[in-house]
Amino acid sequence: MISFAEAYNLVLDYSQDYGTETVSIKQAIGRVLAVDIFADRDFPPFDRATKDGIAINYNAIENGRRAFEIKAIVAAGQRTYKFLEEEHCVEIMTGAVVPYEADTVVMYEDITIEHGIANINTLAKRGQNIHDKGSDKKKDELVIINGTKITAAEIGVFAAVGKANIEVKKLPGIAVISTGNELVEVEDHPLPHQIRKSNSYTLYAALYEEKIEPLLLHLSDDKDMIRQKLSYVIQEMDVLLMSGGVSKGKFDFIPKVLEELGVEKVFHGVLQQPGKPFWFGVHKDAKTVIFSFPGNPISTFANYHIYFRPWLQKSLGLPISKLEVFLEETITISGSMTRFLGVKIRLENGILRAKLVKDNGSGDLTSLSRADGFINLMPREDPYKIDEKVTFISARTLI
Amino acid sequence: MISFAEAYNLVLDYSQDYGTETVSIKQAIGRVLAVDIFADRDFPPFDRATKDGIAINYNAIENGRRAFEIKAIVAAGQRTYKFLEEEHCVEIMTGAVVPYEADTVVMYEDITIEHGIANINTLAKRGQNIHDKGSDKKKDELVIINGTKITAAEIGVFAAVGKANIEVKKLPGIAVISTGNELVEVEDHPLPHQIRKSNSYTLYAALYEEKIEPLLLHLSDDKDMIRQKLSYVIQEMDVLLMSGGVSKGKFDFIPKVLEELGVEKVFHGVLQQPGKPFWFGVHKDAKTVIFSFPGNPISTFANYHIYFRPWLQKSLGLPISKLEVFLEETITISGSMTRFLGVKIRLENGILRAKLVKDNGSGDLTSLSRADGFINLMPREDPYKIDEKVTFISARTLI
Repeated sequence: MISFAEAYNLVLDYSQDYGTETVSIKQAIGRVLAVDIFADRDFPPFDRATKDGIAINYNAIENGRRAFEIKAIVAAGQRTYKFLEEEHCVEIMTGAVVPYEADTVVMYEDITIEHGIANINTLAKRGQNIHDKGSDKKKDELVIINGTKITAAEIGVFAAVGKANIEVKKLPGIAVISTGNELVEVEDHPLPHQIRKSNSYTLYAALYEEKIEPLLLHLSDDKDMIRQKLSYVIQEMDVLLMSGGVSKGKFDFIPKVLEELGVEKVFHGVLQQPGKPFWFGVHKDAKTVIFSFPGNPISTFANYHIYFRPWLQKSLGLPISKLEVFLEETITISGSMTRFLGVKIRLENGILRAKLVKDNGSGDLTSLSRADGFINLMPREDPYKIDEKVTFISARTLI
Repeated sequence: MISFAEAYNLVLDYSQDYGTETVSIKQAIGRVLAVDIFADRDFPPFDRATKDGIAINYNAIENGRRAFEIKAIVAAGQRTYKFLEEEHCVEIMTGAVVPYEADTVVMYEDITIEHGIANINTLAKRGQNIHDKGSDKKKDELVIINGTKITAAEIGVFAAVGKANIEVKKLPGIAVISTGNELVEVEDHPLPHQIRKSNSYTLYAALYEEKIEPLLLHLSDDKDMIRQKLSYVIQEMDVLLMSGGVSKGKFDFIPKVLEELGVEKVFHGVLQQPGKPFWFGVHKDAKTVIFSFPGNPISTFANYHIYFRPWLQKSLGLPISKLEVFLEETITISGSMTRFLGVKIRLENGILRAKLVKDNGSGDLTSLSRADGFINLMPREDPYKIDEKVTFISARTLI
């Protein structure tokens, strides 16, 4: 059996680039930008008034002038007003184009208007209340770099530079596969020996948060059916996320069938808890990557976040999240396994602190709902101490 | 003009409960649970084998027995095997029901099977490798509390307890309204005096991340058209998020029209930068809440996160995010305004640190893409110092 560090590195070695695709600006939310985005014009595209008031030429002020004849009212969205003389001004609204001949905006609060003449009551500064053309970005300047995760801020920039369609990293096609005759649908009333499929829903929801809508598939313990369905998804999908079917039981045909279908086992079993019976393989021709998680809910959930998410981040060219938190209690672990323990995070005073969530072994699904993620403790004899810093794997949006 | 603290509290005073609705389990991702969820049966629902091996009665071991005749193979999903005698065992697979008469599972690694007889080679402990019925949760026990934000972990629990449909907090119906004749569509090639609508897209994306798909509406500077459209949305929607149209310009009819339509101004103008011309009102009959953000992109983006998100969190019964971060540099501010400065967060060693993002005044849309959120600095004469702790308003998922 291999160590957690070996398993983790092997999984990352099989990350893949799935290319790019073009989506509409609205569909780009949460995706990863696959190109650099440049300004298509200067920003702002014209000398823009930032206050409501009058636009003047400051030379007039220097020449002692305080009263200006109002020649027009210029609103945002109107063409540039031309041929402004030094003794003239225009009333100008926020967002409007400052006339070429003007260089200063004096706001309404600082002027008095009578009989079409604006009188300036306070000291003005040359250039005030104007957002200069090109002062934010020049045309063709880089505005968002390739590889950025797209949020509301980026969507606003795309809109501003006229990108109605955006080239983003393509997401892998994923099949979520549940296995086992004991599983029934959520709507069903299970018999005493049956349980409902929960792992498929957990994985569906976790992938949905990554903008991936997976294919959901169930395999009952029938070897021919398993072979037929797996053969199809290995060819059609990029990734299989399976749960159950990887222990040593007589009815667990899956590793055998995968092998027969040309999938190479990369490893089976990791010195970690939960998640020890994790099986990972790859079909070298179809380039399909197979994560076969242990059947119990905490193992599946933990291994999804421990292995699959970093694999996905690397495949999309994103930096892999690396977080550390401070322990709120002393933790003693025994044995030679790497441990992943569910914790609640307290974000106080700018510091992340982790408190263990009590669960009953590795089967208590409800404890997941009380955890924000898992701390990663390497095997060691000395206890992990209060205020010690440990690695944290997030399973919930915290900030 | 009122202070930021006053404005913030007034906005929160107008939070509203929009009731509940029932959605399918898949649609519940990201929503807020509106009921308590209870276990519909014991978890696990039966004594469940956690290893592949044989199930025996430990009394036999105490009586010196090491060899057990194999009576059956029990897989997960099979009914309970009955009438097991002390000298018998069944082969049992992970997830299968342990027979009533058995109380211990010995894994394959610890036995040898010959001629239908399993011989135990190591010491066993009574009760080992069994996940006891009801040990995680008893039937009718609370599993997820009302008010929980639903993530993948909760979806798994809903599936396990048979909740195919979930009662969640209803989201407000929101209209995002852009104003101003200078605005053109993303697809358009703007004339020199025009700019593209970016605020609408930013707000659309930010709301989409909250699972809200807003109505997008544009108002050009035509008073009759503005009245007609606003009258409709005030009646039909719960919230209007507007940008632009609240300064003192001659063409900014909107505050006037809102008033004529029965909207009461709660405040106009806040001692803050950016976002000073923020206008907030409410239509007391229709109970419509109106956030009218200043037109420039940073003001709109900042005020959305400063005011609207806490308002939404309170309306949905969620705790309002309160975060603090450490400054990476000394910051001197002047004047009597509360300042919101764009920062990049560094998450290192379990500590959140904030570094200023340089922007050019309050109009540089592209700086938003470099910021993770805003620090909130109250006016004060002394500079804010390196390593000082300040309030942080997140605008991007960080953990």
